Amino acid sequence: MRFTIQRDRLVQSVQDVMKAVTSRTTIPILTGIKIVASEEGVALTGSDSDISIESFIPKNEEDEVVVDIHQPGAIVLQAKFFSEIVKKLPTDLVEIHVENHLQTVIRSGKSEFNLNGIDADEYPHLPQIEEENAFKMPTDLLKAMVRQTVFAVSTSETRPILTGVNWQVEKNALTCIATDSHRLALRKAVLETDSDETYNVVIPGKSLNELSKILDDQNDLIDIVITENQVLFKAKNLLFFSRLLEGNYPDTSRLIPSESKTEVVVNTKEFLQAIDRASLLAREGKNNVVKFATLEDQFIEVSSNSPEIGKVVEEIPSQLKEGEDLKISFSAKFMMDALKTLEGTEIKISFTGAMRPFIIRPLNDDSILQLILPVRTY
Amino acid sequence: MRFTIQRDRLVQSVQDVMKAVTSRTTIPILTGIKIVASEEGVALTGSDSDISIESFIPKNEEDEVVVDIHQPGAIVLQAKFFSEIVKKLPTDLVEIHVENHLQTVIRSGKSEFNLNGIDADEYPHLPQIEEENAFKMPTDLLKAMVRQTVFAVSTSETRPILTGVNWQVEKNALTCIATDSHRLALRKAVLETDSDETYNVVIPGKSLNELSKILDDQNDLIDIVITENQVLFKAKNLLFFSRLLEGNYPDTSRLIPSESKTEVVVNTKEFLQAIDRASLLAREGKNNVVKFATLEDQFIEVSSNSPEIGKVVEEIPSQLKEGEDLKISFSAKFMMDALKTLEGTEIKISFTGAMRPFIIRPLNDDSILQLILPVRTY
Repeated sequence: MRFTIQRDRLVQSVQDVMKAVTSRTTIPILTGIKIVASEEGVALTGSDSDISIESFIPKNEEDEVVVDIHQPGAIVLQAKFFSEIVKKLPTDLVEIHVENHLQTVIRSGKSEFNLNGIDADEYPHLPQIEEENAFKMPTDLLKAMVRQTVFAVSTSETRPILTGVNWQVEKNALTCIATDSHRLALRKAVLETDSDETYNVVIPGKSLNELSKILDDQNDLIDIVITENQVLFKAKNLLFFSRLLEGNYPDTSRLIPSESKTEVVVNTKEFLQAIDRASLLAREGKNNVVKFATLEDQFIEVSSNSPEIGKVVEEIPSQLKEGEDLKISFSAKFMMDALKTLEGTEIKISFTGAMRPFIIRPLNDDSILQLILPVRTY
Repeated sequence: MRFTIQRDRLVQSVQDVMKAVTSRTTIPILTGIKIVASEEGVALTGSDSDISIESFIPKNEEDEVVVDIHQPGAIVLQAKFFSEIVKKLPTDLVEIHVENHLQTVIRSGKSEFNLNGIDADEYPHLPQIEEENAFKMPTDLLKAMVRQTVFAVSTSETRPILTGVNWQVEKNALTCIATDSHRLALRKAVLETDSDETYNVVIPGKSLNELSKILDDQNDLIDIVITENQVLFKAKNLLFFSRLLEGNYPDTSRLIPSESKTEVVVNTKEFLQAIDRASLLAREGKNNVVKFATLEDQFIEVSSNSPEIGKVVEEIPSQLKEGEDLKISFSAKFMMDALKTLEGTEIKISFTGAMRPFIIRPLNDDSILQLILPVRTY
């Protein structure tokens, strides 16, 4: 194998596939990056066996030569060193050359690295996926849907299925749901697809977080292929595979109350900042619980009290307040996480009593819903 | 105590005094910030008993009212909470008011915090320092001298005196020296002072690091007062006290070779980047040692070898090479630390043999010197 490549393009691809590489693997070869040079270009692969990422660097891009292939071939190089080395090379062009079977020379200007490679034949194969039933969505919509749900997955392994996000595809609509059983995030979107396949799968939260980091915030369409135990996200020059979580996701629809007894409308930013301030003192009590109460005259009160440190009280105007008066307590962290995903300037919070889960939505937008279970304190 | 103050000015001063506050103190009141409101303005103090910082906010600044004192007084508030609270207050003006002896109300817009204060009389007094023998220097020069020496202090407590920087003032010149016994950094500057006092003191490295963070990079003069066991840095509206280290600093002058057998001149940035690359593989061997050798034709070679991973070799052109050929090994980290302090584009390295300490200086500048002890490998 021997090729010459633009350093910056190589650095970018290495950074992408590094998102799948971990040093804590039981399969030693997975601490490496697989490099395959073919007549078409160079493919890099990284994997931790749950997530696999392939980034392809074509020979030419926008009429510019990116890679010059002298001799096709393949090698696996230690990811930790290879990624650090390419970042620090002195010149814009890099030559990579496998000598004597596994010895790999990386040359840039007067700098020459000689790394011990591993036989690429020993690297695990990527999942084989039939791409018949792909559906498409804009990349920025995918990223938004991930951001608005993935934060709510469980971090505990006691119910592994809850560490993933439930993706339901039905009648050209995608619904993403995440819950850790104390709160729930739900986001819906319409898909452009001809197929009427239905899916109900659970994608690990970690996979979705890594996917989001790699994808650019633009509206190019991304292909999504779901199989029995894998999902493949396919963007330009990028393949992102993730295994699916096994098991049935709980039916969350009955958790979401359909009517309410108290409704308030507040400015998202004002409310978020008030909760943030109240949580400064709540944090110390370890449970991070703040109190919320409706007042007279369209005001609501947010407060918290930590006897050893002090207390905080503040009033926030609400644009609308309907129904019964209410006092309720909830986790400031859960509320802030939820508010950060709601882009509208105004949100409506719908309560059905101090002991019942309540719902937060942007005003006049049903595509997203955040649900939080209150905490008993009043 | 009751006053109204501009939030941003308060946030800035709180951040400055926080540099001295630590949660790991055996004196509970030092986890607090002392606030003293007088007719002249508001003084904030933070201290960990080694370092004490006082930041003063005058009533008026540039014809603008910064503080409005309604009633003078003093209180100590928990630094951790007070600093977080002031940063997040909703409006530009903040009212601070002590009620019922120690209960302190912080009010900003519709937000009201009520903190349990501590009696300010219990707060330790700042050191009393006679300011007769101050000398002055530009703030940016002080920051440069700290940056160019403090990195070389020892981090080990086996010889506590080496955790400080030795400041020698004699004949209107200040010399700063730091060494951890494997390397040494020395920086000299001429002072503008009328006094012919001489000083030889050791200032804790930690104090100098914190001082540097607080001072702006401008050329206003800063007053420095040295006493038997304290040093005071006095800038506009800021007092920074540090205790001095007890004991005698070793005489380092005999460590510095006065003649050399091999001299090379290289471009600082080129050399730094080559060392950085070579250290990528050296790091794994834990000692982080790279090799340096003079070649024919004005070139030098930097290399490192880590049998399990691979090796790196690169050539760097030298503008000048005089004397005996040489092979030597040294810590890549020490070399990079030293090179980062040398601002000139060209540096001269003077060797007196593979087993002797060597010196790095900017070309044509004797005010700064970095010394490194080699490592035996060749």
